[in-house]
Amino acid sequence: MLLESVRGPEDLRGLSYDQLNDLGGEIRDFIVSAVSEVGGHLGSNLGAVELTLALHRVFDSPTDAILWDTGHQAYVHKIVTGRQKAFETLRQAGGLSGYPSREESEHDVIENSHASTVLSYADGLAVARELGTNDRRHIVAVIGDGAMTGGMAYEALNNLGHHSRRVIVVLNDNGRSYAPTISNLSANSQGTDERSHHPSVTDRITGRLSHALTDIRQNPVYVRRQRRIEEFLGGLPVVGNQAGSAMDAFKAGVREFLQPPSFFEALGARYIGPFDGHNIEEMEHALLNAIELSDEGPIVVHMLTQKGRGYSPAEDDDEKNLHDAPVFDLAVGPPKAVTTGYTQAFADSIIKEAEADPRLCTITAAMPGPTGLLPFQARFPDRCFDVGIAEQHAVTLAAGMAMGGLRPVVAVYATFLNRAWDQVVYDVAMHRLPVIFCLDRAGVTGPDGASHHGVYDMALLSKVPGMRVFAPSSAQDLAQMLHDATSLTDAGPVAIRYARGAARQVSEHEVGVGMHARKVVEADDPSASVCVIAVGKMLETAEKAAAKLADSNTNVAVWDARCVAPLDPDMIADAARHARVVTIEDGIRAGGIGMTIADQITDIDPTRQVDVLGLPTTFMPHDPKPGNIHARFGLDVASLVDVIRG
Amino acid sequence: MLLESVRGPEDLRGLSYDQLNDLGGEIRDFIVSAVSEVGGHLGSNLGAVELTLALHRVFDSPTDAILWDTGHQAYVHKIVTGRQKAFETLRQAGGLSGYPSREESEHDVIENSHASTVLSYADGLAVARELGTNDRRHIVAVIGDGAMTGGMAYEALNNLGHHSRRVIVVLNDNGRSYAPTISNLSANSQGTDERSHHPSVTDRITGRLSHALTDIRQNPVYVRRQRRIEEFLGGLPVVGNQAGSAMDAFKAGVREFLQPPSFFEALGARYIGPFDGHNIEEMEHALLNAIELSDEGPIVVHMLTQKGRGYSPAEDDDEKNLHDAPVFDLAVGPPKAVTTGYTQAFADSIIKEAEADPRLCTITAAMPGPTGLLPFQARFPDRCFDVGIAEQHAVTLAAGMAMGGLRPVVAVYATFLNRAWDQVVYDVAMHRLPVIFCLDRAGVTGPDGASHHGVYDMALLSKVPGMRVFAPSSAQDLAQMLHDATSLTDAGPVAIRYARGAARQVSEHEVGVGMHARKVVEADDPSASVCVIAVGKMLETAEKAAAKLADSNTNVAVWDARCVAPLDPDMIADAARHARVVTIEDGIRAGGIGMTIADQITDIDPTRQVDVLGLPTTFMPHDPKPGNIHARFGLDVASLVDVIRG
Repeated sequence: MLLESVRGPEDLRGLSYDQLNDLGGEIRDFIVSAVSEVGGHLGSNLGAVELTLALHRVFDSPTDAILWDTGHQAYVHKIVTGRQKAFETLRQAGGLSGYPSREESEHDVIENSHASTVLSYADGLAVARELGTNDRRHIVAVIGDGAMTGGMAYEALNNLGHHSRRVIVVLNDNGRSYAPTISNLSANSQGTDERSHHPSVTDRITGRLSHALTDIRQNPVYVRRQRRIEEFLGGLPVVGNQAGSAMDAFKAGVREFLQPPSFFEALGARYIGPFDGHNIEEMEHALLNAIELSDEGPIVVHMLTQKGRGYSPAEDDDEKNLHDAPVFDLAVGPPKAVTTGYTQAFADSIIKEAEADPRLCTITAAMPGPTGLLPFQARFPDRCFDVGIAEQHAVTLAAGMAMGGLRPVVAVYATFLNRAWDQVVYDVAMHRLPVIFCLDRAGVTGPDGASHHGVYDMALLSKVPGMRVFAPSSAQDLAQMLHDATSLTDAGPVAIRYARGAARQVSEHEVGVGMHARKVVEADDPSASVCVIAVGKMLETAEKAAAKLADSNTNVAVWDARCVAPLDPDMIADAARHARVVTIEDGIRAGGIGMTIADQITDIDPTRQVDVLGLPTTFMPHDPKPGNIHARFGLDVASLVDVIRG
Repeated sequence: MLLESVRGPEDLRGLSYDQLNDLGGEIRDFIVSAVSEVGGHLGSNLGAVELTLALHRVFDSPTDAILWDTGHQAYVHKIVTGRQKAFETLRQAGGLSGYPSREESEHDVIENSHASTVLSYADGLAVARELGTNDRRHIVAVIGDGAMTGGMAYEALNNLGHHSRRVIVVLNDNGRSYAPTISNLSANSQGTDERSHHPSVTDRITGRLSHALTDIRQNPVYVRRQRRIEEFLGGLPVVGNQAGSAMDAFKAGVREFLQPPSFFEALGARYIGPFDGHNIEEMEHALLNAIELSDEGPIVVHMLTQKGRGYSPAEDDDEKNLHDAPVFDLAVGPPKAVTTGYTQAFADSIIKEAEADPRLCTITAAMPGPTGLLPFQARFPDRCFDVGIAEQHAVTLAAGMAMGGLRPVVAVYATFLNRAWDQVVYDVAMHRLPVIFCLDRAGVTGPDGASHHGVYDMALLSKVPGMRVFAPSSAQDLAQMLHDATSLTDAGPVAIRYARGAARQVSEHEVGVGMHARKVVEADDPSASVCVIAVGKMLETAEKAAAKLADSNTNVAVWDARCVAPLDPDMIADAARHARVVTIEDGIRAGGIGMTIADQITDIDPTRQVDVLGLPTTFMPHDPKPGNIHARFGLDVASLVDVIRG
C-alpha cells in the first residue's frame, strides 16, 4: 500500500506517475470504504483525487496556501496531509470535520462551506502579501464550476483582474456541480442561431456560464467555428517573408480571441486549459505554467474532472444522490437516495398545490434534489427554475415573478437564505409580494457543522415587516401551511421552515390551520401550571416532557406555536394566564421567537416569568445526531423537564 | 415652455428632435432648480435626461415595463410621467419619493434602492410573461455601470442568457458610477503587456469591468488591435468569387469576436453599442433595433452618458459631492461637500490609527466619499481598497486580508452591510478574524426612505458569535472605540455603528473606554428611580429627558451602553437595582438591544419591569428630518419622558 507511506505532501514528491496513479486508486478505495462506514461527500471527492495530488506536488503547503471553495471536496487533501487515520471519525461528534478545519491542520486555511467565497479570500491574502504581512509564496484557490455561478465569485474575479493580483485559480469543472447538465447542448455563447434551439427541460437546470465551461470541448458550434477559422488561416496564401510574419502575428491575434472562455479574460484574468483533471502529469505542467504566468495577474487553470470518478454508482449519480452519501454496505453499494420526513411532505404538497393553482412555480438554487423538487420538476418542467448557486438572484427573481402574477415558491436550505436576506427584505417584503419561502434543513442539521445549521432563519425572518413565518410540527401541518400560504400571500410573503430528517405523522384533527397556534395539552388549573410554547419540531420534545410530568404534581400545558411571526394573540393571552411560561425553539435564542413571546407576555403582565430555551450564540460543531446537539444545549426532554420543574 | 405641455409620456411622441433637445434643457434647469431648493440626487439625473426621453418615446409605459436599478436616476422619469408639479415636495415628509414609488404612479414598477437587483426582477417578469400571467409587452431594465459590478447582476445575466429571455438591458454607463475613474487607462482585458502598467492610485478605485465598459472607445489597446486586424483584413488578396465570399464570412466571424464587451456575450446576452447617451435619435434607433434582436434573447444596449451633464458643478463633481446634493443657492451654486459629525470623526480617527498601525487598511464598496475615506485614501493610497458595489466581496476580502496579518476596516452604510450578513457570520466571525466594520448612516437616515434606514445592523450583528458591537454617543467616543477596536480584534471582529449628521462633542472625561458602558447620570435612590439605558445617539435624548425630569419627583439614572454586544455586566447589574428600566435605541426594537437587556435583567430579577423603546418592524417612510421619524415612533424626548413617568 502506497497510501500508508504518505504522511504528508512531501511524501508525494518522490513518486513516479505510475505510482501516483496507483495511489489515486488506493485513495478512491479508501474514500469509498470510509464513506460507506460513516457517510459523507462521495462524488466531489472521488472527482478531485488526481487534482489534489497534482496540487500538493506542485505547491508546497502550507508555504503555499491551497484554498478550497465550499470545502466538501477536501477529503483527498485531508488524506495526504496526515489525516488518513482520522477518517473513521469523519463527521462524528468530536471527530474529523467534513470540511477543512483550521483546528485540525496547518494545511487548512478557510473553513466556510457556503459556496463562492474562495476568490475573495484569495484576493485578501494576495493584498496582505503585497503589503508585506503575509509570506505565502503562492495562493491557489480551487473553485468548482457550480460555485462560479455565485455572484460573489464574479465580484472577486473582477477585483482580482483589475488589480492584477498574483493568484492562481483552479477551476475544478466537473460539469455537474449540483445538478445534471446535458453536455452535447449547443450552448455556445456568441452565436445567435445556435442559441434559439436550446431550451429543453434539463437545459433549464444550470446557468449559462456552467454550460459555457462544461461544453468547451464538446460544443459543436465552438469546434466548428474554430475549425473553420483554422482552415481559413491555414489556406491563406503565403507571399514572402514579411507577409508570413504578419500572418503569424495575425494568427496569434485571432487565437487570442478564440481562447475560451472569454468571460475570464473580459474580467482581466488569464485563462489556460482545459486540461484533463485526471492526468496528473498534464495538470502539473499546467500548474507550473500557471505559476509563471501569475506574475502578470490572476490566472484561471481549467481542469475537467469527472464527479464520482472510479466508482460507478457515484459516476452515474446524475441526481446527486451521492453528493452527501449515507452510510451504506460496500458489498451492496449505496442505496438510492430517498426523500423523507418534511422534505417528502413538501415534495408531495407542492405538486398538489401546483395542480390546483397554475400560477404556482418553484425556484431553487442548485438544489432541486435535496429540497425535494425533482418530482415537481418532472411534473411541471416549465414551472421549475434552478438558478445555480445564486440565492440573491433566486429571491429577486421570485419578486419579479410575483410582480408578474405568478406564485413563486423559493425552496432552499435555511442557512443559505441568509445570503439573500437583504433581497428578502427590500425586494420581496417591501413590495408586499406573494412569495413563499420553503426552508429545508432548518434548525440543527448535524454532520455538516457550523455553517450548515439553520439557526438564524426565525430570528431574521421574524424581523421582516409583513413576513409570516411558519414552523410545522408534523408532515401534515407542513402540507396545511403550504396550502394556507397560497391565500395568505395575497398580503405579502410567507416562510415555512422545517427540519431535516423524520417528521411526525399525525391524524387530521391534530393539524392546525391558518395563522393560528394549536393547543396540544391543556393544564387543569392554568394559574398553578406551566405553559410550554413549542416551535416546530420541538413540539415532540414538549409533548414528551409533558407526558413525563403527567404523574407528577407539575401541571403542564403545551402549545404548538405554528405561526411564529406574527404570534397568535390567543396563544399569548392564554399563556399569560399560566403561572409560568417556557418557550422552546431550535433556532438561535437571542432575538428569536421565545424572546418575542417573553416580550409580549410581560407586556400583559410585567411580573410573569418566561423561560426562553433556544440555541446559544455560538458556532455549533458537527454531530451526526442533531439530538446530541439539542441535549448539549438544553433542548432535550430531560432538560426541558428540569426547566418546567423550575 | 415645452415642459409644461408634457403631462405624460405620450406627449413626448409628437415632438421633433430639436424640440426634444430643448425639452432636455428645460428639464435640466428644472432639476437643478428643484434640487437647489430641497436637495436630492443631481449628477445621476442630469446624466439620464436624453436617455429617459428616448426610452419613453420608444417604449409605451406602463404597457412596457421600464425598470430603474437603484432608482436615484428616475427624476426625469418622474417628470415625464406627470409628477413635475410634485417636485417641490421632493423627499419631504409625505412628499414625492426620491426613488420610484408604486404608490405614486403606475409607471413605477420597482422601489428598492439597493443596487444591482434590476436584472433579477426583469428575469422574473419575463418568466411571468412566458407563462402567461403578465402582459407586459417589453421589459426594459436600466442599470448603471457601477451596479454591474454587483454579483447579483452577474447571477441574473447568467440566467437571462441561459434561458434566452426576451429582456432589453440598457447599460447606462456614465463611467463614474460612484467614484472617479481614469478614462485614458490602458485597461484592456485581453492583452498581457498592457495590463502590467496600470496600477495607479485612482485606478484602484473601480472594478475591472467598470473600466472595460468605460474605456471601450478610448482604450488605445483596443483601438490599436482593431485597426491592425481591420488593416490586415482589408489587405488580404481577393482571389475569385468563392474566396471572396469565404473572406466576407471570415471577416464577419472575426468581427464577432471583436465585439466588446465579450463579457456579456460569454454569458449569453447579445450586445450592441456603445451609443451616445445624449443623442436621442441615435438611442431611439438603437432601442428599436434592440426590440427586434430581443426576440432571440437578452440584449444589452450600451449608452455612454455623462454624469451631471449640462450643469458644470455637477459635471466636474469628481468626488461625487453632488451625487446626493444638499439644498443650495442657485446664484452661488452648490457648496463643496463637507464631511461632518460622526463621519468626520471616523475620517480623522482612521488616519490617526493607521499612522500608528501599519497593518491597518480600509475597504469600501464604491463609497469612499460618503464614508469619509477620501482623506485616508489620499494619505495611504496603497492601503485603501474600493471593490465596487460588491459588499459580499468587501467582507470576505477583509477576511482574507485579516487572515494574512492585516487589520482591515470595512466602511459601508449600515443598511448595505445587510447584503453581506452571511459573509460577516461565516467568513469573518467563524474564523475569528480581526476585521473592524465601521457602519455609517446607522439608525434613521432621513430623505432616502425605507431601504436606506440603518435599522437592522444592531439586531443582526449582535447575533453573530464573537462579534463586539459599539454605538458611540459622541465624536470622541467613536475615536476611542476605533482605537480600542484595534486591540480588541485580537479576539475577532468588531463593529462600530453611528448615525448620519451632527455628533455630540464632549470633553475627555466624558469618553468611555474598552467594552465598558458609562454611567452618565446617577439617581439619588436607585430603588426608587428609573434607569434609562441609551444606545449611541439616543444618549442625547436620554440626557435631555433626565434634565426635564430633574425638578420633578421622578428620579432618573442614565447609562450610555456604548458596547451593545456583549453588554457590560456592571451596567446590567446596576440597572437591575433600579425600580424600573427603560431602554432606547435607534434600531429595530424586535430582537434588538433593549430586548436583550430586558432578557438579562429579568434573568437577575424576573419581576423587574423593563420598557424597551425602539423602531417598529415596518418600512419607514422618508423624511428629511430624522427627528420627525423618531418622534413618530416614540423615540423623542417627550415620548421618553412619558415612558419614564410610567
